[in-house]
Amino acid sequence: MAKIADIYFKVDPWRIIEKGFDPAYSRVSESVFSLANETMGVRGSFDEGGSVDSLRGVYVNGVYDIENLNKSYRGIVDHTHFMIPAADWLRTKITLDGEELDLGKAAFRDFERTLDMRAGTLTRFFVWRTSTGKEVRLTFLRFLDMIHRERAYQRVSMEALNFTGEIEFSSGLSFDTRHEGYRKCFWTDTRTQAASDRVSMQSRTTLSGQELFAAFALSVSGEACSMCGGKTVDIKTSILLRQGEACHVDKKAVLLFNGKSGDALWTDGANALDASENVSLEDALQAQREYWDAWWATSDIQIEASGDENREAVAAEQQGIRFCSFQLAQTYNGGSMRHNIGAKGMTGEAYNGHAFWDTESCCLPFYLFTNPQAARDLLLFRYNTLPMALERAGMLDCKGACYPIATLNGEEGCALWQHASLQLQPSTAVAYGIWHYVHLTQDDAFLWEYGAEILLQIARFLYSRAAKSSKSGKYGFYGVMGPDEFHMMVNNNAYTNYMGKRSLAYAADTLERMRTQCPQAYAALIEKTALAPEEIAAWRDMADNMYIPCGADGLIEQHDGYFDLPHTEISDIPVSEFPLYEHWSYDRIYRTDMIKQPDVLMILYLYNSSFSSEEKRTNYNFYQPRTIHESSLSPAIHSILAAELGNMDDAVRFFGYATRLDLDNYNRNTREGLHITSIAMAWANIVYGFAGLRSDTQTLLFAPRLPERWKKLSFSVLYRGRVIRVCMERAGTRFTLAQGEALPVDVYGRRYTLTDELFVSAI
Amino acid sequence: MAKIADIYFKVDPWRIIEKGFDPAYSRVSESVFSLANETMGVRGSFDEGGSVDSLRGVYVNGVYDIENLNKSYRGIVDHTHFMIPAADWLRTKITLDGEELDLGKAAFRDFERTLDMRAGTLTRFFVWRTSTGKEVRLTFLRFLDMIHRERAYQRVSMEALNFTGEIEFSSGLSFDTRHEGYRKCFWTDTRTQAASDRVSMQSRTTLSGQELFAAFALSVSGEACSMCGGKTVDIKTSILLRQGEACHVDKKAVLLFNGKSGDALWTDGANALDASENVSLEDALQAQREYWDAWWATSDIQIEASGDENREAVAAEQQGIRFCSFQLAQTYNGGSMRHNIGAKGMTGEAYNGHAFWDTESCCLPFYLFTNPQAARDLLLFRYNTLPMALERAGMLDCKGACYPIATLNGEEGCALWQHASLQLQPSTAVAYGIWHYVHLTQDDAFLWEYGAEILLQIARFLYSRAAKSSKSGKYGFYGVMGPDEFHMMVNNNAYTNYMGKRSLAYAADTLERMRTQCPQAYAALIEKTALAPEEIAAWRDMADNMYIPCGADGLIEQHDGYFDLPHTEISDIPVSEFPLYEHWSYDRIYRTDMIKQPDVLMILYLYNSSFSSEEKRTNYNFYQPRTIHESSLSPAIHSILAAELGNMDDAVRFFGYATRLDLDNYNRNTREGLHITSIAMAWANIVYGFAGLRSDTQTLLFAPRLPERWKKLSFSVLYRGRVIRVCMERAGTRFTLAQGEALPVDVYGRRYTLTDELFVSAI
Repeated sequence: MAKIADIYFKVDPWRIIEKGFDPAYSRVSESVFSLANETMGVRGSFDEGGSVDSLRGVYVNGVYDIENLNKSYRGIVDHTHFMIPAADWLRTKITLDGEELDLGKAAFRDFERTLDMRAGTLTRFFVWRTSTGKEVRLTFLRFLDMIHRERAYQRVSMEALNFTGEIEFSSGLSFDTRHEGYRKCFWTDTRTQAASDRVSMQSRTTLSGQELFAAFALSVSGEACSMCGGKTVDIKTSILLRQGEACHVDKKAVLLFNGKSGDALWTDGANALDASENVSLEDALQAQREYWDAWWATSDIQIEASGDENREAVAAEQQGIRFCSFQLAQTYNGGSMRHNIGAKGMTGEAYNGHAFWDTESCCLPFYLFTNPQAARDLLLFRYNTLPMALERAGMLDCKGACYPIATLNGEEGCALWQHASLQLQPSTAVAYGIWHYVHLTQDDAFLWEYGAEILLQIARFLYSRAAKSSKSGKYGFYGVMGPDEFHMMVNNNAYTNYMGKRSLAYAADTLERMRTQCPQAYAALIEKTALAPEEIAAWRDMADNMYIPCGADGLIEQHDGYFDLPHTEISDIPVSEFPLYEHWSYDRIYRTDMIKQPDVLMILYLYNSSFSSEEKRTNYNFYQPRTIHESSLSPAIHSILAAELGNMDDAVRFFGYATRLDLDNYNRNTREGLHITSIAMAWANIVYGFAGLRSDTQTLLFAPRLPERWKKLSFSVLYRGRVIRVCMERAGTRFTLAQGEALPVDVYGRRYTLTDELFVSAI
Repeated sequence: MAKIADIYFKVDPWRIIEKGFDPAYSRVSESVFSLANETMGVRGSFDEGGSVDSLRGVYVNGVYDIENLNKSYRGIVDHTHFMIPAADWLRTKITLDGEELDLGKAAFRDFERTLDMRAGTLTRFFVWRTSTGKEVRLTFLRFLDMIHRERAYQRVSMEALNFTGEIEFSSGLSFDTRHEGYRKCFWTDTRTQAASDRVSMQSRTTLSGQELFAAFALSVSGEACSMCGGKTVDIKTSILLRQGEACHVDKKAVLLFNGKSGDALWTDGANALDASENVSLEDALQAQREYWDAWWATSDIQIEASGDENREAVAAEQQGIRFCSFQLAQTYNGGSMRHNIGAKGMTGEAYNGHAFWDTESCCLPFYLFTNPQAARDLLLFRYNTLPMALERAGMLDCKGACYPIATLNGEEGCALWQHASLQLQPSTAVAYGIWHYVHLTQDDAFLWEYGAEILLQIARFLYSRAAKSSKSGKYGFYGVMGPDEFHMMVNNNAYTNYMGKRSLAYAADTLERMRTQCPQAYAALIEKTALAPEEIAAWRDMADNMYIPCGADGLIEQHDGYFDLPHTEISDIPVSEFPLYEHWSYDRIYRTDMIKQPDVLMILYLYNSSFSSEEKRTNYNFYQPRTIHESSLSPAIHSILAAELGNMDDAVRFFGYATRLDLDNYNRNTREGLHITSIAMAWANIVYGFAGLRSDTQTLLFAPRLPERWKKLSFSVLYRGRVIRVCMERAGTRFTLAQGEALPVDVYGRRYTLTDELFVSAI
């Protein structure tokens, strides 16, 4: 835990504020000031571009292109796909006396950039001083419409402070957007239509053949003309600035990606632009604020400091946890079941926009307790991509469905075979996600219509991928890599075996329940999947006879031979060697007992009620000192278990950077984009960790443990139609049923019935 | 052993004959008819090219170019190198009445192509019938000079059978040679000088910047002109063919690659061409024949059939073993310590011309007993490339020297990290090779001057790469892949641990002996390598405490957890699934008890005298049924051990295709080139297997066991200045000391002194 905060932004309960501009921090700021509305995302880059260091990213969810790879061996992907920058609708140029605004070169003062998490807006203002001494106050506002998700807005306000005169203003749209990693533009065959106050364009990706419509209307009065060049169109005009009088230009943009192409898309796009023009920017902004007000009302986590000496630190945590919630809600909120959650959302090119098993393992709890419909839609993404998972299993000489380790479209997008072929956790995570969703929502209709089929095919995959030990006759998974990616091609990885066992059993349970509870759907499913009668029994047998490497002392061996491995004393590794993947020879990380993230502790977290406190303590004490936390998921798991075990020192220590991972650039790579899926664990760290919520039990279970420096922690959860407010204070915790019928809850192991309000004293 | 012969060539004791031409077999024939003289090699492609399927390869030993790879992780190579086709000096075009000779299109008869292993020549003749009915008998002869290795010869003989008239003859030289795999030509900046009877050219490789001089002189009378175009020059002339009178054109080519460049190389090249012109083709041919006569006199293995019913099969074996010996001697014979032995020699692009650990593990015994100077030069290649091995160890965060798994120039050329980073057998094989060479030759001078330094750096590498088990405290190698490439990233691989143990001990022994026997050189070495006093003791300690996974029953476990692995019943795999790497998902081969080649049996072969018969039997019986022989090295190891164990059925069965692996295209990939290093094992299979030679003992040991179908097997070995002829017959074996002083030999475990002749009855 040698990582330390790199403090740059101002602390504020609801806003992220950058005062003054440090060019060296430019890309970090761009990431932190990202906006998204699930359908599209945009990094906080300067509208006017210029020579500052920048990854100028405008992304549309689901838009990607393809790279064909050299043919290698069977089962290794021969092409991959990756998110590409979409149409740049923020393009703006401002010129005064022939001098173009460029904050990399110009003189300026009073710079301030603010992300407002209650309004969902990004604002930037500063005073630009030209070389001739003229001063203009410029304010840039942007937001992405959370309701009409194809819509985006920009307002540029200008005020001449010490002169009256013309300013050249140019606002454009460009498909000439370059993928930084691939160093090229993937857009081709661009169609353009331009007038003096509006521009429409449509273009196609090179190999994936996706079409995107992009357009904008500009509130210009007076003479304007459009200039087309290649894949870029600009509208240029002159604006008379009168000293002391602010004026502004509004840009209403539309980016439409609806699966259509050609004229059909063009027509839809034109209609969308027309509809957008009927709403004023002020009205759109008001609607946006109402959207977020409603969202925060159920999703906010509030923290108060226990004393003056903690006020500053806790204020930073409060801001941090809100930032996490805000970014998660921006990135995904169930707008479409075609979307998933990229590891970096739509905030950068790193990880190619791919979603990983993080979705089910890290993000799903957040949605289950704040937006169950979004959780359902995430699972429907897996249903919709089941055909690709079936195909992938075939490529691996297996049956059933193998879910990809990294994907945008359902296909395996990871070109590193050692991850794509050996990591089975995406498939078991999908099974777990279905179980978790159905368990919490009791949405059997989903299970019969979608879940059961996925579970069946995952069980088939696992059954075909597992094998029997020559010696013990027990089943296990051989040649795998668990979530701990520091051990490759191991046998009987505890996580993989345990999750496989539970997935097989749950698939068998589900199909057996379905046969009696929903026989017609069951019959249809049997026919559709050609399920042989003996298959379910075979899964059950495998689940019953799955090898779980656990000794009499309850200590689980992470995989065969793990206890024999040479020891690495983690505290002896110099800080200069982090991140290890940049400083250690690739193969070197794979041959000691050092682990990246804790496979065994992950089981204890996911199936918490299946293990005794003693088992948790034994395994926590063994694995904690061997874990290097090179995955940002790892500290939160430790913190949650430490809290449960009453080890509040560890709980607080591992919570350390969870809430401000990106705000304080702890991993020194926020410039590449936000750790969207990891910050989901900040929510879990608080709700599962300090409130002790457990969701794998039949009733909800709480065991609040307030860190010393907090006076108060409060949040709400949605659960089976109820809204439960939880307010933890030093003396005890007050549970309020804000909505819905009475329900039983367990607090500190005692059963209560929550009707209106319940207070349980702290222990 | 589902592989079967694909019989095409005629059986003959000293020649490989193709009668008639099957275009579908074109590439296989090109490989089989390859010529080489260590310095250069040429596939048996048609001189005139044409539309037949062909991999037209002319190679010069050590000439390669480079590909820069995408940056990935530390320790993974960022560029690789590969043999490229050199200048095509065989280029010939023959045109009659405007019709160009092309055996892919033309009518022809009486086609015969013959490789003469006593002359070292390739001859091809046929009668060409043009569309107008004219018939010309054409004979093409070629050979590569075994003495002046920059020289190569071609003679084209022509005889008009039914007409008198002019024929257009064009002979050229071209650097416009395309690498088939990369689909491009790597030669650039070609300098050319052409006259009517000679052409000189010089060109440079693109990234490696190597320069090659190529030239030829042509015996043309009458008018001729040279035509230059790009990187190609042709000399064109008309030749009057008189009916029934044969005439010929001789081409004397020179390919000079001597490390020089620019004018210096050009001058050397011009001189080399002049020198070549002073010798007639007939004289060169005579010298060639004498070279091979002398070579066969000491290196031939002769087999006779035990009865008429075996005559045909044994004649094929006789031809096969001669072909193996001939190809090995062509490919490498100690001409330069800058050369090594590519897995496919200079007979194709597959394996990039790279040499592997096969050199020390498969090929060295052949040279040790037929050409010890060549064996020494092979080891000097490792000395000369020690700097690269030091650098490679550093890339892997290790100390000392890590020898590459695949190389032409000493750098690691393998872009697959799982092989390049996890396979330690190249380094232990070099240590073993030094031991084997010094043990047999008693060449301590070599050891003190070169060997000790290599051994020291290999020991350092092994010491830094090994680690201690957390549980047992024993040393072992973690995260490795043994020669059995069907198990990756395993711990305590028996082969790696055992070879590591022996290498460390031998390095310690050597340095200790050097300190007393050659103190000055020792002092210099200590200084050069900054050897710390405690290092040798540390190696000794590691060797003494190296974990060898062997049970009380003597059964060695191939690696930790091997006995637990799921079983694959090899005989259940359908023949249609071979080769497995084309038909099985890449990861699937890594997770069962099926092995590619037998690591444990390999130890028993290399350190034969260190294991009891019972240990050998136990391990042979266990591993033999689990081995799929996807390495062509594997069957010979089995055959040798089976013969030792008296299991002659297995010995003969596994010997099966050893001698005719390529002649009968057993692996169905001879088209890609010859299995040069594997065919070295055919020699070992006979000498170690059926003659029972053992060379890891203090005296030479024989235990002749003649297969039933052989009446007689005879061969010679060179050993410490002696020439020992061995002649095995049914009744017994006659040992003749053809040269040198008397020496003790062990036969069937009894000590004899071989003075002139010794006969030992069969047991």
